[in-house]
Amino acid sequence: MVKVDSKELRKFCTEVFAQSIPYEEADVVSDNLVEADLLGFHSHGVCKVADYLKRMEDGLIERKTDLTLDKETLTTAVYNANNGWGQYASVKAMNTAINKALKSGSSFVGVRDSNHFGITSYYTKMAAEKGCIGIATTNASGLMVPFGSKEPSLGTNPISFAVPVGEGKTPVVLDMSTGNTARGKITLANKIGGEIPDDWAITKDGERTTDPAKALEGYLLPMGPKGSGLAIIVDILSSVLTGALFGSNVPRMYEDPEPQRLGHFFGAIDITSFMPLEDFYKRMEERVEQTVNSEPMEGFERVYMPGELEEEKKRKQLKEGVQLSNEIYEELKRTGHQYGVEIDEFIKMKV
Amino acid sequence: MVKVDSKELRKFCTEVFAQSIPYEEADVVSDNLVEADLLGFHSHGVCKVADYLKRMEDGLIERKTDLTLDKETLTTAVYNANNGWGQYASVKAMNTAINKALKSGSSFVGVRDSNHFGITSYYTKMAAEKGCIGIATTNASGLMVPFGSKEPSLGTNPISFAVPVGEGKTPVVLDMSTGNTARGKITLANKIGGEIPDDWAITKDGERTTDPAKALEGYLLPMGPKGSGLAIIVDILSSVLTGALFGSNVPRMYEDPEPQRLGHFFGAIDITSFMPLEDFYKRMEERVEQTVNSEPMEGFERVYMPGELEEEKKRKQLKEGVQLSNEIYEELKRTGHQYGVEIDEFIKMKV
Repeated sequence: MVKVDSKELRKFCTEVFAQSIPYEEADVVSDNLVEADLLGFHSHGVCKVADYLKRMEDGLIERKTDLTLDKETLTTAVYNANNGWGQYASVKAMNTAINKALKSGSSFVGVRDSNHFGITSYYTKMAAEKGCIGIATTNASGLMVPFGSKEPSLGTNPISFAVPVGEGKTPVVLDMSTGNTARGKITLANKIGGEIPDDWAITKDGERTTDPAKALEGYLLPMGPKGSGLAIIVDILSSVLTGALFGSNVPRMYEDPEPQRLGHFFGAIDITSFMPLEDFYKRMEERVEQTVNSEPMEGFERVYMPGELEEEKKRKQLKEGVQLSNEIYEELKRTGHQYGVEIDEFIKMKV
Repeated sequence: MVKVDSKELRKFCTEVFAQSIPYEEADVVSDNLVEADLLGFHSHGVCKVADYLKRMEDGLIERKTDLTLDKETLTTAVYNANNGWGQYASVKAMNTAINKALKSGSSFVGVRDSNHFGITSYYTKMAAEKGCIGIATTNASGLMVPFGSKEPSLGTNPISFAVPVGEGKTPVVLDMSTGNTARGKITLANKIGGEIPDDWAITKDGERTTDPAKALEGYLLPMGPKGSGLAIIVDILSSVLTGALFGSNVPRMYEDPEPQRLGHFFGAIDITSFMPLEDFYKRMEERVEQTVNSEPMEGFERVYMPGELEEEKKRKQLKEGVQLSNEIYEELKRTGHQYGVEIDEFIKMKV
């Protein structure tokens, strides 16, 4: 484990990306990845730098995002990312949703033919910062089966909501995948040995398994019929409705030599269309207090609001540095060197 | 068990309600309750007739819904149901959301100070019938604890989405509670005896239990941290944002002698703002086929889309009659008689 300063880490990653893509896009992608590490979502963090660049070198992600507008109404829009960078297209799309909502009350903006966009809450929090309730979804390649099926036609399609609580206060942020577990937990179980619960995954032949190695060759199980249903709705909003590839048509991120043409969906609701912001913030404060001041069950120290633990981790890591595994740090170093960007020139604080 | 014709059942229930409330409102409430029975959600069906009327007689639901408009923008509105009938206020609100979406692309409409609104998918399907994607949520009285807490500040706050697939085709309908189980399943386990899984409920002292009797005195557990987070978001959208009572402030439906002042939230997205309806329907057909034609896991006969099983049950019961338990049928008979409406004059087909 190493701890590095998050600002230095971000600058380094930006510099690495900027050797191949416009600086503005490099900076957005880098900020999104470092934010994931800060919140503790390491599977969506800077470990993606090498993966993204490999896909770019293979011609599967464009070096410059040519974002075009397919269709627009007063409260909706559909962007075509034309196989550019997911984060860059998504920031533009969420900004459009926020601006439309602030003008007209509510808005939904889709993105088609895009790539991996990082963590979903990155975009919903943009809306919360502007006094809106943010909604975001994305589809992903098929690692998960629908409830009752042995064929993977779903990603772990996440959905996020963010709600502002007031100036300087931690927003309420839900960012959930629709799977029963993260693939990363199975990878970990496979490394350290031992069994996994039998509702996490199936083998490639469609049988429930407690063997992490067989689970990794197979597919994830959804969070029951409800998680499966939500994943299908997320796929419809993100991709059927926007013109992206959907369901089992989506190529896999690592194995398939084709652009993924993913779809994302962003919503914003202007709070002042419903009540004055100060009234809403007062009500939200009470809503938060009802939860966090409630008596915890046995085995819990206290009760948290959605997103609270992640924001705590972020505050801590902003101060003390972001924790990265040695493997990821070494991979970043190699990747940087490959593009003529030396990590030691950027990362000064390292514990 | 008895089987009765659904149209006759609806007319009877309408007539019973219409002895006390306007015919138009009686008809909407009755249609909503019978629809729940048709789909197989008997806990939200005509078993509610007596409960609703008792609350009305106790002065906890107004005899006429005085729906007023608190606030309106191009794409949003907030209605105050002034303690009237949840179903009636909600049909008006969803119609407003649909009309606004068809004009401007998307819309969200809230209802405050309302009562139990029946099944959530009733409203999202209204949107799907008009070529929109429908969204609906409601809060409810505190029967469920947030993740890690022993204090019930959440209902099993449901969320529903409905997506049209084409003229005459079964829409995709997700209608899910955010709890780990329905309270009805615990009631059933208590009747027939036996244990319940230890992740369904806690005792009133906050301990996990497998004893259904103790579970019924206690509180439901959410569907893990994700279900808990979703329930909180549903409470925020339905009630914090609309001015309704939220969280632990909501009085309980049966025990507390106060109006519940619930909140509901309805959204509509006009599909043609994103792509022509015929293109969307073609894509949806493929999306449905990917799922229903996929190979089932062991233990499953086939794979279903969300809402498909319920619509199948509805088609069957429309033909063969709605199944009601003898207890519910007798209760309906007594309730009708109390209001001078004799069930035998309405229900001719009964098996």
